Amino acid sequence: MRAIPTLCVPMGDPAGIGPEIILKALSHGTHAGKATVLVLGDRNLFEKTASDCALGNPFDAVIEHEDEIGIARKDSQGKAVLYHMPLVDLARFRYGTIDGMCGKAAYEAIARAVSLTQAGYADAIVTPPLHKEALRAAHIDAIGHTEILAQLSNSDRAVTMFETLGLKIFFMTRHLSLRAACDAVTEERVYRSIKECYALTMNDAFDTNLPFVVAALNPHGGEHGLFGDEEERAIVPAIARCRAEGLDVVGPVGADSVFHLTRKGLYRAVLSLYHDQGHIAAKTLDFDRTISITWGLPFLRTSVDHGTAFDIAGRGIASEISMVEAMRVAVRYLAGARGSV
Amino acid sequence: MRAIPTLCVPMGDPAGIGPEIILKALSHGTHAGKATVLVLGDRNLFEKTASDCALGNPFDAVIEHEDEIGIARKDSQGKAVLYHMPLVDLARFRYGTIDGMCGKAAYEAIARAVSLTQAGYADAIVTPPLHKEALRAAHIDAIGHTEILAQLSNSDRAVTMFETLGLKIFFMTRHLSLRAACDAVTEERVYRSIKECYALTMNDAFDTNLPFVVAALNPHGGEHGLFGDEEERAIVPAIARCRAEGLDVVGPVGADSVFHLTRKGLYRAVLSLYHDQGHIAAKTLDFDRTISITWGLPFLRTSVDHGTAFDIAGRGIASEISMVEAMRVAVRYLAGARGSV
Repeated sequence: MRAIPTLCVPMGDPAGIGPEIILKALSHGTHAGKATVLVLGDRNLFEKTASDCALGNPFDAVIEHEDEIGIARKDSQGKAVLYHMPLVDLARFRYGTIDGMCGKAAYEAIARAVSLTQAGYADAIVTPPLHKEALRAAHIDAIGHTEILAQLSNSDRAVTMFETLGLKIFFMTRHLSLRAACDAVTEERVYRSIKECYALTMNDAFDTNLPFVVAALNPHGGEHGLFGDEEERAIVPAIARCRAEGLDVVGPVGADSVFHLTRKGLYRAVLSLYHDQGHIAAKTLDFDRTISITWGLPFLRTSVDHGTAFDIAGRGIASEISMVEAMRVAVRYLAGARGSV
Repeated sequence: MRAIPTLCVPMGDPAGIGPEIILKALSHGTHAGKATVLVLGDRNLFEKTASDCALGNPFDAVIEHEDEIGIARKDSQGKAVLYHMPLVDLARFRYGTIDGMCGKAAYEAIARAVSLTQAGYADAIVTPPLHKEALRAAHIDAIGHTEILAQLSNSDRAVTMFETLGLKIFFMTRHLSLRAACDAVTEERVYRSIKECYALTMNDAFDTNLPFVVAALNPHGGEHGLFGDEEERAIVPAIARCRAEGLDVVGPVGADSVFHLTRKGLYRAVLSLYHDQGHIAAKTLDFDRTISITWGLPFLRTSVDHGTAFDIAGRGIASEISMVEAMRVAVRYLAGARGSV
């Protein structure tokens, strides 16, 4: 890796708050001395957003060709570079509106981010939010960002992790009803999920001296079957199988303490068994500083974990905290540093 | 009410950390100028605990009769008074051991706390932890503290609320498996739970200018039935019925944001639909400062929300933060002040 890494930042849906929070995050200079930031998007759109949101121009350079990237990356102070892609027709553009043009623009910026990163021009991708309906209006069929990135990079398994103030959380299931999430708690599924997530923790971003921990499904872990038998029937046996294979995994630990204990430094990461289990923990701890990391792609990807906020787009009032945090964590991981508060 | 209130503090299971955290909490002088604290327990046990834990004696007086309480309460500086009850035979006492003698001692202290409070000698009860097995060894059949208090005060409905840094959380269900908790989400049950909890918020401890909010059961509130139909089938209709009756209640709001938004000041309190939903939020936000409040009794009751910690009892290493917080919140509520960070 070069002295400082390069982060690729596609603009997100231009009708949302993506461009605004990118401008704001760059204006902080958080990247100064730490990363070159290569933003992919439309110059005219960024100029309009900066003007409408009363923001300055944080870009050190605007380029239009890949061969100009190398020059920017040579600057060890960390430049902010806008890679201009003519994607948005301002004559028909409106903030806060579902528009196929915007969905397509967002998609094209991501696609370019992936190709540039895979070609070695950048080390990680940091993403602002997309709008699903706008993607659909552009005839792009994908559930979301992560799936698009997986498709574009031919990855068959992308795994989402949350990080909030150093607390790292994996998910066994996500977009299932709570009832279906309970049904999914079988020994085989828990076993496979532990194996998959555990393997992803074997890198410098994690403290592998600490055990990996699995959350319980039921209150107090079911209190020995008193309320719920999934612990005894599925979770305990799955953990035992993993331990027998040499994995340093423990649990199940009651969900009301496992996140607290992990944050205190007892465990390297938590496997939560359903969407809200991990989401409540992360987002109640610090809503704005909860970011999403995608493992299993050929490159590191971090992301804000909020939406496009169409209702406040173009007004200059969006918070860039999450974007700053996503960039900060990407830089930290690329430097091989573990998460901490 | 008098100028400063009196808090009744039964000692909890003497074999656990209860006496230690009471001694520590009093030694902070948190109550100074704010409350008279009347601790109910065995003088010899407190002396032993203070000695074993290398703690000083924080009591301004030791009394043995009810008629001595009045004198202590006249002191507006807030005295710490030990009401001695000969409950523990030190010859057979051992820390960290399930013992019917200790279960009975804990129970007797609670019973006295209730009778004194109901007789007007105190304004609220603040409790350290009990040990269920020790109660059972003493032939006291009760699920826990709250049930004992309800029985002793002839209350047919005691309702638990959590408070963490001002965030107030009610529970529709608690000690059920997650699957059974899903089953419990019927329109009728949600309706009754909203009505009951809402009624309990009509006092000075809550900001009644803000709406009461109901958490969603499924991720993102089920996304219009995409994953889970309990929102559309039960929660939305229950809220609509309550609103039609004039209750200022809103929701369902996704569990990953409802606690954050409530803490930010958008809602007066949250109704969580299952144990871990509210527990994860409270305890991940601040484990030690999560305390439990019982409404529906003839008196205010606040409590620590941790266990007896038999494994570290008598060693002087237990944290008193939760006990201090439980006393602090009781004083604040008695003064008619709303919760805030």
